[in-house]
Amino acid sequence: MQTAELLTRPSVPAMDALLGYAHPVLGHGFVRLIDYMGDEPAVLQAARVSYGKGTKQSSEDRGLLRYLMRNRHTTPLEMAEIKLHCKLPVFVARQWIRHRTANVNEYSARYSILEREFYVPKLEDIQQQSTENKQGRAEAGLTEKDRLYVQQQMQLAGDRDFDLYETLIHDGDPTDDPGLNVARELARINLPMSTYTEWYWKVDLHNLLHFLSLRADPHAQKEIRDYANTILKIVRQWVPNVYDAFVDYRLDARTFSGQEMAILRRALAGNPGAMVQIERSLGQSAELSKREINAFISNLRGALTDV
Amino acid sequence: MQTAELLTRPSVPAMDALLGYAHPVLGHGFVRLIDYMGDEPAVLQAARVSYGKGTKQSSEDRGLLRYLMRNRHTTPLEMAEIKLHCKLPVFVARQWIRHRTANVNEYSARYSILEREFYVPKLEDIQQQSTENKQGRAEAGLTEKDRLYVQQQMQLAGDRDFDLYETLIHDGDPTDDPGLNVARELARINLPMSTYTEWYWKVDLHNLLHFLSLRADPHAQKEIRDYANTILKIVRQWVPNVYDAFVDYRLDARTFSGQEMAILRRALAGNPGAMVQIERSLGQSAELSKREINAFISNLRGALTDV
Amino acid sequence: MQTAELLTRPSVPAMDALLGYAHPVLGHGFVRLIDYMGDEPAVLQAARVSYGKGTKQSSEDRGLLRYLMRNRHTTPLEMAEIKLHCKLPVFVARQWIRHRTANVNEYSARYSILEREFYVPKLEDIQQQSTENKQGRAEAGLTEKDRLYVQQQMQLAGDRDFDLYETLIHDGDPTDDPGLNVARELARINLPMSTYTEWYWKVDLHNLLHFLSLRADPHAQKEIRDYANTILKIVRQWVPNVYDAFVDYRLDARTFSGQEMAILRRALAGNPGAMVQIERSLGQSAELSKREINAFISNLRGALTDV
Amino acid sequence: MQTAELLTRPSVPAMDALLGYAHPVLGHGFVRLIDYMGDEPAVLQAARVSYGKGTKQSSEDRGLLRYLMRNRHTTPLEMAEIKLHCKLPVFVARQWIRHRTANVNEYSARYSILEREFYVPKLEDIQQQSTENKQGRAEAGLTEKDRLYVQQQMQLAGDRDFDLYETLIHDGDPTDDPGLNVARELARINLPMSTYTEWYWKVDLHNLLHFLSLRADPHAQKEIRDYANTILKIVRQWVPNVYDAFVDYRLDARTFSGQEMAILRRALAGNPGAMVQIERSLGQSAELSKREINAFISNLRGALTDV
Repeated sequence: MQTAELLTRPSVPAMDALLGYAHPVLGHGFVRLIDYMGDEPAVLQAARVSYGKGTKQSSEDRGLLRYLMRNRHTTPLEMAEIKLHCKLPVFVARQWIRHRTANVNEYSARYSILEREFYVPKLEDIQQQSTENKQGRAEAGLTEKDRLYVQQQMQLAGDRDFDLYETLIHDGDPTDDPGLNVARELARINLPMSTYTEWYWKVDLHNLLHFLSLRADPHAQKEIRDYANTILKIVRQWVPNVYDAFVDYRLDARTFSGQEMAILRRALAGNPGAMVQIERSLGQSAELSKREINAFISNLRGALTDV
Repeated sequence: MQTAELLTRPSVPAMDALLGYAHPVLGHGFVRLIDYMGDEPAVLQAARVSYGKGTKQSSEDRGLLRYLMRNRHTTPLEMAEIKLHCKLPVFVARQWIRHRTANVNEYSARYSILEREFYVPKLEDIQQQSTENKQGRAEAGLTEKDRLYVQQQMQLAGDRDFDLYETLIHDGDPTDDPGLNVARELARINLPMSTYTEWYWKVDLHNLLHFLSLRADPHAQKEIRDYANTILKIVRQWVPNVYDAFVDYRLDARTFSGQEMAILRRALAGNPGAMVQIERSLGQSAELSKREINAFISNLRGALTDV
Repeated sequence: MQTAELLTRPSVPAMDALLGYAHPVLGHGFVRLIDYMGDEPAVLQAARVSYGKGTKQSSEDRGLLRYLMRNRHTTPLEMAEIKLHCKLPVFVARQWIRHRTANVNEYSARYSILEREFYVPKLEDIQQQSTENKQGRAEAGLTEKDRLYVQQQMQLAGDRDFDLYETLIHDGDPTDDPGLNVARELARINLPMSTYTEWYWKVDLHNLLHFLSLRADPHAQKEIRDYANTILKIVRQWVPNVYDAFVDYRLDARTFSGQEMAILRRALAGNPGAMVQIERSLGQSAELSKREINAFISNLRGALTDV
Repeated sequence: MQTAELLTRPSVPAMDALLGYAHPVLGHGFVRLIDYMGDEPAVLQAARVSYGKGTKQSSEDRGLLRYLMRNRHTTPLEMAEIKLHCKLPVFVARQWIRHRTANVNEYSARYSILEREFYVPKLEDIQQQSTENKQGRAEAGLTEKDRLYVQQQMQLAGDRDFDLYETLIHDGDPTDDPGLNVARELARINLPMSTYTEWYWKVDLHNLLHFLSLRADPHAQKEIRDYANTILKIVRQWVPNVYDAFVDYRLDARTFSGQEMAILRRALAGNPGAMVQIERSLGQSAELSKREINAFISNLRGALTDV
């Protein structure tokens, strides 16, 4: 391996231009790029230490990145890292923190006083419970007046909770009022889950993509999806070919069970015209490699030889 | 190694007697033992696979457990596992979940409706902000009347927030009221952080002890400390010798920096009577092994030979 | 939630019957079930704490387990745990240990003396380098005589290395030979990577299935595949419906990229007979739920509504 | 928080000067700095998001870093990351990989051919088994001649194993020899554990320090200690104040159990001169903060008020 040469740190000009900029999300929230480590060549470098001399001839970087994504060879993607400063409502933070493979430093309301900032949904985002999707929203069902009413009540409730918070933590003023000066860790327990918190969040690219595949998904709650979509735009700047492969092999991909594959294979075998059309389309595809085409066809035909 | 013999699952009668019992914590909260894997012999078995024949002669199980704890050989402690069902306020859950090496399934307020249950501190737990400890409470400073006022306000605020929640999620009744039927994932964002949630939490013994060392610590917030102390009692039933070693080598232990050790060593060298007294006490100790005594003395004298 | 009732520990008679039995793998290796925590109801219990009242009506346990697997809701699978005692060659252990979310206690050759046990492949497993698969073996290419030669050389080389090891660690005998008594940690460095080691390995069911999906895969090295297949049989005894869902949704499933889905959808739209046949097959399937059928068809048609 | 200002990436000139340089370790091994993320201000920045306004006045950066280390507030240290390229014998790699919280891409001997490079200890490192330390070496006991003999045997054994390897993988030459061309994944299993491998290893500063505290320890095997000590020098360049605090609070620190503290406290109480001398030394210390001094004294006196 090339051990003699000195290095300079990999950098991505498009990312350097973003450093420190607060991408707005929701009302008071944001996502801010603080730092990053590595770029696409760094991912490839790690992939090639694994494959060693055996693949040094592979000059097609984009192809190798697609290969990694297709075959879930995820360790090279762990070699790039990103650090974000986020401001987000507590109920979003609670979903986010379930992703354990990350580093977090959160604003502590035991030490510090919280700003009067809480999330109130926009009118168009106030929706009824979905009957189909037990964890989601239905688009129709609320009148404009209903939405306005809900929004106002949420605003009022949050303000009332912050009024109490400020009364509780008030530590007096010189003239007369001694203030209750209740411990911060206690005064904050009545604040709503819509209250904004902040954190530094650092994660590697593989685990970031896993987070995004779950949180940019239509089944994720709309509010965390907004954050995921903002971060996706940053990823696109950072590692554009990885981003494309991620969209193709994760976001837009579909998985069929063994049972479903059997049904599909039978239907294709019984309708040769469909298979002919598939092979014709494959022949015209500029993007798919010979290897991918072979794997695709053998998947549809049932043989077990995808590499 | 003993590979021929068949096994029965290790069990601890004192734990079996606890299974399913909800130890009350705070107002509506609890900790319930659901299941456990392994016992003290299972920890020792794992320790001995590492040390192999080299330590098979070590017949003193208690001594080996103390040795593991003293030398932070933590992997054998990972071989025991516990599963708890907990009910706890969201602000406690947020501190708890920072411990990443655990498995969690939490009640989802996106799917399901929350009960009207929130934590209101007892009068004696309502305290002012500490001036010494920026993240803590001061014992003095609030009158009985102040405390009552704070408690009432917290009760009122929580009730108001749940009133709104119930209005928002109400999905109508047959006669007249159509109900707003706001999506659950949205209606819950104004509930306070004192709202109770529930989860199944599964963790290995090593990571549980790490959790307890931080959360049973006087600097942890009183409310999570109540949970930690409840769990400590369960640990004592489960692995009593590990518990004793944990108290001695973690909870009651003190660490001195290199600088502090230099100062301490100089003082002991300059006051031979102190060292004489230490050695006399050590001679009378029934618990400390010869190895521990040697390590202790060499630490105080400055040599670097603790095994 | 049901908090009043006391519990007994979940147990699986088929697993209890396996406890301690050493399933042979490779020459000297084995996999031995030491303990387990939880069963299928324990996974379902954890799933239902998440979904809460919202899904209590779901009486079909098998359907819920399939739903979890299909939608990669993996946290309930983390609520079951297994502990295995394995004996395995070092080169297999090196592949195995890359799975980080597990607990391990390994035999230490710094403390203890290694037995003269190393892996020598059977004749039929001695194969040439594959030209297609850069990391695999080709079935043809070696004569019977070649294979015998290779096997003998491997046996001789291992024996020679152990001869040296035993000379180095020999600590003398009463009569004459003082022995070199070289430190164990040093004497073992010339032993081959085929040397057997042992460990206790503890992992949750989700991470175990992930391990198995990679190591029972045809692209995994044959030797670790033998271990994976042995463990798969234990999983089948432990959680039979989870096992079935795993085979259907992981081992036998196929994933198609966005590009491939576009080609497939176009071919099906252009050949209506194929789609008719698929829908007819679906109608005859006893296993697929209505929800799965809808998701499958909408995936093939291109809508984005799979729940 | 400062959200408006744009940022430049933190960099450390002393580290930039090291990038790519292969620090030699053992015979053929090395540690090479590939990339890093963050510096001391980045650690402080993360610490201060936690403490928020409550500690912004803390202008003493060095003091805050020491505070983090003393109180094991480790999450801010997770905000810095380092990536190393290492070449190391397999038996060292096996100890190293036990540290699970890191990212690794290792050279694959399934894909690629291994160089004829294996570790042979220097004469002075060839030692006998320690009788005191079951996992260590004794300094005395082998004659110069013995050491030479051991070294030669190790050289011969490694060469023999590589001779076989090269015979097995030889894939023929144009003239006559067809070559066995045994699959790489199989041919390598007889290579010794002293064979060198390579990997990219990426880890956050907190987990790196934990690794170093265990692997730079006198009880670690000499060979991995050589790597740890090399990395320690890089850490010193990267985050000099963190390094100092690490040496003081970890490497040079000593922990006393509850029992030992009781004995120590009694001896100090019974010998007032010792305590007087300690307090005098503390008064002269430039480094220890008032807070540290108070905590130290109260630890020695037995009160439980260290913050």
